[in-house]
Amino acid sequence: MKLASYRDGSRDGQLVVVSRDLGTAHYATGAACTLQQALDDWNFVSPQLQDLSLELNRGRARHAFAFDPAMCLAPLPRASQCVRGTAYPSHRERLRQAGLRLPLGAVTRASAPDWWALPGDAMQGARDPVALGDEAWDLDFEAGLAVITGDIAAGSAPARALEGVRLLMLANTWCLRAPQAKAWADGLGDAHTRPGQSFGPVAVTPDELGDAWHHGRLAMTLHTQWNGRRMGVGDTAAHMGLHWGQLLAQLSAHRALHAGSVVAGGPVSAPSAEVLAGAGVAVAEPSPVAAGGVHCIAERRALELLDHGKATTGYLCWGDEVRVELKSRDGFSPLGALQQQVVEPAQA
Amino acid sequence: MKLASYRDGSRDGQLVVVSRDLGTAHYATGAACTLQQALDDWNFVSPQLQDLSLELNRGRARHAFAFDPAMCLAPLPRASQCVRGTAYPSHRERLRQAGLRLPLGAVTRASAPDWWALPGDAMQGARDPVALGDEAWDLDFEAGLAVITGDIAAGSAPARALEGVRLLMLANTWCLRAPQAKAWADGLGDAHTRPGQSFGPVAVTPDELGDAWHHGRLAMTLHTQWNGRRMGVGDTAAHMGLHWGQLLAQLSAHRALHAGSVVAGGPVSAPSAEVLAGAGVAVAEPSPVAAGGVHCIAERRALELLDHGKATTGYLCWGDEVRVELKSRDGFSPLGALQQQVVEPAQA
Repeated sequence: MKLASYRDGSRDGQLVVVSRDLGTAHYATGAACTLQQALDDWNFVSPQLQDLSLELNRGRARHAFAFDPAMCLAPLPRASQCVRGTAYPSHRERLRQAGLRLPLGAVTRASAPDWWALPGDAMQGARDPVALGDEAWDLDFEAGLAVITGDIAAGSAPARALEGVRLLMLANTWCLRAPQAKAWADGLGDAHTRPGQSFGPVAVTPDELGDAWHHGRLAMTLHTQWNGRRMGVGDTAAHMGLHWGQLLAQLSAHRALHAGSVVAGGPVSAPSAEVLAGAGVAVAEPSPVAAGGVHCIAERRALELLDHGKATTGYLCWGDEVRVELKSRDGFSPLGALQQQVVEPAQA
Repeated sequence: MKLASYRDGSRDGQLVVVSRDLGTAHYATGAACTLQQALDDWNFVSPQLQDLSLELNRGRARHAFAFDPAMCLAPLPRASQCVRGTAYPSHRERLRQAGLRLPLGAVTRASAPDWWALPGDAMQGARDPVALGDEAWDLDFEAGLAVITGDIAAGSAPARALEGVRLLMLANTWCLRAPQAKAWADGLGDAHTRPGQSFGPVAVTPDELGDAWHHGRLAMTLHTQWNGRRMGVGDTAAHMGLHWGQLLAQLSAHRALHAGSVVAGGPVSAPSAEVLAGAGVAVAEPSPVAAGGVHCIAERRALELLDHGKATTGYLCWGDEVRVELKSRDGFSPLGALQQQVVEPAQA
C-alpha cells in the first residue's frame, strides 16, 4: 500500500491511503490519524490500511478523492530518529579523493558504516519550497532513497533487520556546503548546516515494488533534474555497498531502533574505474551507469576537480528547481516525484 | 512549573504536573495528554498547566498522588530533534589536547558551534537501567543540562532565541567511545555509537529556578557520582562559553527549530590554567571549581594523559551506577536526580 500525510494545519498531518496509480486517496481516520500512530501499532493498524488500499485500488472506496502531491507533508512529518548512512560508497570516495570530505579515513571500505544523525523536525513535503537565507551558504541536495522502520532490536542480524523496513520513499537531504566545510575544517560537528530534508509524496510498503525489491535492494532508476536538465540517471541497486538489511543491522548493532526511524541512504552514486581502484570497492565492473551523472552537486564538483583540476559548477540559487523521480523498468513511477523550488525565506 | 511523563505502557507516557518539592504529582489530562502536545500548543495549554501547578503547590489539587521518579520516562520520551552542542569549551579543549577528539581544528574558540545531532528515539528515564551489550565498547556518560525549546524562527537573535527555552532538565548523553574512536579515525560519522540519552525525572520552566536562571545561564552546582564516589562538582554557569540564547541562535542560524527540540549542552566542565592558555578562552580566572573534577570519563582520561602520560581510569562496567543531581546554593534539588545502573541487555 501507499501512504501519505495530508496537510491539515497540524504538525503531523492526516494519514491517507493512496491508490497504486497515485490517482486517488482516502483518509485513514478509522484506522489511524497519523502515520506515526500506524507505525507505533503496525501489526494492528496496517491490516486495516491494507483493506482500505484494496478497496481504493478497485475503485470501491466510498469517500475517495483525487490525490494531490502538493497537499502532502513529508510522509512522516516528524521523526524521532533521522539518520543518513552512505549506501553508495562511490559518493563518499569521490568526495574524499577530491578533498571535499573529512580527510581522515585513509581507506573507504564499502562495508564501513558512515552514520550521521540529522534533525527530524525539518521534514519537508514533495512540493514544499526550500527556503535559503543566503546563496553564499552553498545549498546542495542529495537525492536518493530512505526507509521508515518499525522497532528493530539491538544486535539484529541483517535478515531480521530487513524485516523492520516498513516503508520506502524518495529522499532529498539538503546541505549547506559552506558552513559545513568550515565546521569540518575546525573539527566540529555539522548538525547546524543541515537545513532539512524533503521526501516524496508517498511512502510505500515493499510489496508495492514487486520484483524490483529483491534481497534488500530496490532495482529501479533514479532521475534527478536541476532546472529541467538531466543531472543524473542512476541505478538504485547496482552500486549499493550494503543492502538495507545490512545497513540497518549496522545502525542497530549497539542499540534498538524504534518505530518511525527514518534512515536515508545518501545520494545515489555509481563508481567510475578510477574510483573503484582507489577505494578497493568490490563491484565487479564499472557500470555504464557511471556515465549517467550524479545526484548531488558536491559530487559533480568532485568529478570536475578530479578531471580538470577545477570545480566549475556552482551551488543552488534562488529560483532553481530540483526534481527527483524513481522509475521502474517499464517507466512506472511508484513513489511519485519530488519537485521543489529554492526560494528566499520571505517566499517560503 | 515542573512537568514529567509518567510510564503508562505507551511510547510517549502521560503528562503530569509535579509539585515544586517533587513530593506530589497530578495528571494533566484535562490540558494535554503528552508533553509534545503541550509544546505544540504552548500558549494555549501552558496556562492550564500553570493553574494546576499552583493548586498542587498549595496542596489543593484533588487527585494528587505521591510522585515517584522511578515511574518517569524521559520528560520528552521522543524528540523530533535532539542535538548536542558544546556549551563548556574546556571539555572539548581538554579532549583535543589529549588527542581524544577529532584532531582537525587548530584552535578551539569559545564561540565556535560544535553541533552533533543525536537520535531522539532513545530517550531514557531517570531511573531506567542502561543496557550495555559489551563492556569492550567503552561506555561513557556526559552529565549536564538540556533545554526543550518551542518554535524558534531561523535567524533569531540570541535574546529572541532565549525566549524559546520552554523547559530545562538534567541530561546524560551516553557514548560508546571504542566504536566512536574507530569511526572518527576512519573519517566517518558516529551516530551509531550513541546508545541513547537519559534525562532527569522532571523538566521545569525557567521561572522555577528563580535568580539562579540569569542572562541565559543557570547558576547552580552539578554533582556527578560514579559508584557512590564523587566524580565532579561543577558550576553550571561560570564556564559556559555561550549562554543558552546564543547557543540556540547559532543552531537556528540557517533554519527554524520546532517545538520539542531537545538541545543538550554536553558535559559540564571547568578550565584549568593550562587549558585556558591553550584555548584562548576568555574566562577571567581559572576557577577553584577546576579542581572539582569532571563530568565524563573521557575528560578524566584526558587529564590523566596530560598530567601523567597515561590514562588509568577505565570506562563503565556492568553493575556500575551513575548519579547526577543539580543543587542550588541552599542545597535544594530543583530538577530531581538521575540515578542509573549499567546492566547486561537481558536485565534491561
